[in-house]
Amino acid sequence: MNQATKPGKEDYLSRIGAEMDRYLHAEGWSLRQKLALGCRILAPEGHASGLAGQITARTEGPGVLLTIRMGLGFDEISASNLIDCDDDLNPLDGDGMANPATRFHLRVYRARPDANCIVHTHSPCCSALSMTEEAPAIAQMDTTPLHDEVAFLPRWPGIPIADEEGQLISEALGPDKRAILLAHHGQPVACGTVERAAVMAVTMERTARLHPLASSVGEITAIDPKLAKEAHDYRHQEKHVKASFGYYARRVLKESQECLQ
Amino acid sequence: MNQATKPGKEDYLSRIGAEMDRYLHAEGWSLRQKLALGCRILAPEGHASGLAGQITARTEGPGVLLTIRMGLGFDEISASNLIDCDDDLNPLDGDGMANPATRFHLRVYRARPDANCIVHTHSPCCSALSMTEEAPAIAQMDTTPLHDEVAFLPRWPGIPIADEEGQLISEALGPDKRAILLAHHGQPVACGTVERAAVMAVTMERTARLHPLASSVGEITAIDPKLAKEAHDYRHQEKHVKASFGYYARRVLKESQECLQ
Amino acid sequence: MNQATKPGKEDYLSRIGAEMDRYLHAEGWSLRQKLALGCRILAPEGHASGLAGQITARTEGPGVLLTIRMGLGFDEISASNLIDCDDDLNPLDGDGMANPATRFHLRVYRARPDANCIVHTHSPCCSALSMTEEAPAIAQMDTTPLHDEVAFLPRWPGIPIADEEGQLISEALGPDKRAILLAHHGQPVACGTVERAAVMAVTMERTARLHPLASSVGEITAIDPKLAKEAHDYRHQEKHVKASFGYYARRVLKESQECLQ
Amino acid sequence: MNQATKPGKEDYLSRIGAEMDRYLHAEGWSLRQKLALGCRILAPEGHASGLAGQITARTEGPGVLLTIRMGLGFDEISASNLIDCDDDLNPLDGDGMANPATRFHLRVYRARPDANCIVHTHSPCCSALSMTEEAPAIAQMDTTPLHDEVAFLPRWPGIPIADEEGQLISEALGPDKRAILLAHHGQPVACGTVERAAVMAVTMERTARLHPLASSVGEITAIDPKLAKEAHDYRHQEKHVKASFGYYARRVLKESQECLQ
Repeated sequence: MNQATKPGKEDYLSRIGAEMDRYLHAEGWSLRQKLALGCRILAPEGHASGLAGQITARTEGPGVLLTIRMGLGFDEISASNLIDCDDDLNPLDGDGMANPATRFHLRVYRARPDANCIVHTHSPCCSALSMTEEAPAIAQMDTTPLHDEVAFLPRWPGIPIADEEGQLISEALGPDKRAILLAHHGQPVACGTVERAAVMAVTMERTARLHPLASSVGEITAIDPKLAKEAHDYRHQEKHVKASFGYYARRVLKESQECLQ
Repeated sequence: MNQATKPGKEDYLSRIGAEMDRYLHAEGWSLRQKLALGCRILAPEGHASGLAGQITARTEGPGVLLTIRMGLGFDEISASNLIDCDDDLNPLDGDGMANPATRFHLRVYRARPDANCIVHTHSPCCSALSMTEEAPAIAQMDTTPLHDEVAFLPRWPGIPIADEEGQLISEALGPDKRAILLAHHGQPVACGTVERAAVMAVTMERTARLHPLASSVGEITAIDPKLAKEAHDYRHQEKHVKASFGYYARRVLKESQECLQ
Repeated sequence: MNQATKPGKEDYLSRIGAEMDRYLHAEGWSLRQKLALGCRILAPEGHASGLAGQITARTEGPGVLLTIRMGLGFDEISASNLIDCDDDLNPLDGDGMANPATRFHLRVYRARPDANCIVHTHSPCCSALSMTEEAPAIAQMDTTPLHDEVAFLPRWPGIPIADEEGQLISEALGPDKRAILLAHHGQPVACGTVERAAVMAVTMERTARLHPLASSVGEITAIDPKLAKEAHDYRHQEKHVKASFGYYARRVLKESQECLQ
Repeated sequence: MNQATKPGKEDYLSRIGAEMDRYLHAEGWSLRQKLALGCRILAPEGHASGLAGQITARTEGPGVLLTIRMGLGFDEISASNLIDCDDDLNPLDGDGMANPATRFHLRVYRARPDANCIVHTHSPCCSALSMTEEAPAIAQMDTTPLHDEVAFLPRWPGIPIADEEGQLISEALGPDKRAILLAHHGQPVACGTVERAAVMAVTMERTARLHPLASSVGEITAIDPKLAKEAHDYRHQEKHVKASFGYYARRVLKESQECLQ
């Protein structure tokens, strides 16, 4: 390597950006397929807590919301068994109902025009943290996509079937956070794309999983917020997120192709 | 959505009830099939502790109790290998014996006419909690089906093959609790249907699993008992319980259809 | 049930003994097959720590010891790839060597004529306990087969390839203990039959697994030694041990029949 | 056994060396095949943290580095989808890019002529330890291959895409350590062969997994450094390392042969 002046981090960053544009290619999945893949990705990551998990996407089609049918688990979702709902959660095709607890998504979509996909699960380690009202520690590189992204709702308003929880969550999320830990409840993430929402939900639980392991061993030490921000931005690059989603999706499709139908 | 007066939680609850009646349908499984499905549901959830798990149902047929054959594990149970027993645990069809530790079920059925199915397992986290005589913390939404439902028996009377444990458990359960943590032993649940018993047993272990995770991280904070009761009632709705059981059952049947035979 | 005088625990115990004799039947596996099944049972229970696990049986055939071939893992063992060794660990059929760390088994067999099978593994929770020199807490019913059975060797003499560890372990085991926790090392169990050794090894690890879970939650409380002894004797009944082994073996054979060849 | 003078540990060690030479045989896999097997071995051991894991080998062929293609996970690697890169990470065959974070490998290879393979992963328990800046406790026999081998880098310099982290890691590793825990990041190992690197990476995570388990139970006690060194040397024997790799590789190949293509 012949280099007159040594390249700095900025030089590498733009080179990497160009290389990712050239070498990383996302599949041409439809919104329904991506939503179904998201569910199947989340299931083996511990997000399938009985019937408690939800995923929705804002649509431009006949309904305002595309979501899973109540009664089906994440591992059963396919592109064809998702349902369209109006802005009062009424199903538009008459066969099946949305999970009533999805109501808070409607409010978040109204408050956050940048959000197009919400994942809400009771994954075990986020659930455990929620019992202690402790936010997941962001102190390792893989957890930095959550840096400055995780709001906290200290109040549990009971079963989230009415309008109150939507208001509370929207307010706590504020104008730009992409994730929130709900005390005594679980995690929602709200992102611009299905890919990012799925990857963020996986990251939330993996981050929460490290916390009790680390706490059993010693005191968790903080990382430099500037470096955390840098790593956050790096991992949140569109191409990086899509590459992660693509990898998780291939693992799903190796087991079964049916979710694309 | 054009709404003159904003609907409250009560309005949503009755709407949800009507929608669940309309959209959620349970399979027409026989009692034997449901009992077998219950065993197969519990096995991968960590309830198969060697030969220690038991499940029984009160019957109206020739025996008073339908149960698993001693020597078979939960993952081996099918509708056709269950056995009928009389009220002294004698098998009625001559081929196989009940687990002698099932004797306490007889006493509970006598004391609790509302109970038609008992699941008793030594699932790992309930077992661990039982060593510390600590009840599982009910501090997250998914654990609320246990709200005000879990009795505690502080005394371990040794191997539960005689009549004493039945008496102790019946007394500790009292007239209406559906679950109990037995010190140094494990969990039984006693419910009106196989579906509810299976779902409650799964919930007991999942709740117990959150406890050490949360304890490793911080102090568990309590939830409002009124909201816990509301969430408890919501999750205990017949249709909700059957939908959960149906989902777990489909996961079993995806792996193997044989348990229905 | 017409009962003039209420039966006591003793009455139930003898009735259960008779019923187990009548209803529980063991398979007619050869020693080689049982040893291979033992390995395959232990593998998914977390005992396959790379190449570190060992199992041996005292034989009456050409060798004095039947054991696994160094280089094979527990999940690869079949009846036909076991090797016979003399009392200096020399292989008798020339194709393959015993794990040199098996040498301590020779010494234990000499000291303990009642022992016919030794299992030695570095299962994760026994390994973790061994780092703290803490014996596994016996405070839950399923752990009682270990009551008064677990010796402790506080000294780690390094790699156990010479004669010293055999002497230390033999002395620490004494005349009648069936298990021992070796500080900074792992667990061996020494029992009269392959079935009992396999079931005891499984029990050692499961017991050790409960310990950190319970410790994370609260203080482990002791159980009444008399009741622990009673439960120990109940679970150690020949028929009960064989029924447990039979159940674990069927799980192995459902996956693969090859280990019997 | 007729023995005039009792053999000591040294005698046994040389006998074992001769026996391993005679009885343990390694497969004749190519470098590409070994690298692909390494990835597939690491995946189910918990090293597949999304796209974060890396493996590289120094080559004598057209490139200076053989590595995985960015966007593929460890479970997707085959001999034929590895890519050759020059000493500035430019791909030599034009189809795919290396993980940019692999840059630090280049620096380590320059500093350490004895290193021919580097594995770098964010396995969960190493990640958890890295959050507390606590080195994995080496206090059980299976962990001794790490004795005096694990350096620690207390400073996290952010995303490792530039030249700084390579310098920091090289300096912290020094002239002879084979592993390092990077604060707030993960583990790299740098070894002479692919086999040793894969086995060391597995050992790093398994060692880290014991730490929180042991810490939950009690205080970890130290082992005699002289005996730890002895066990380290025993386990690091070429034949022993290759036998471990061979066993792990057979487990991979039982599931799928495709990684050799």
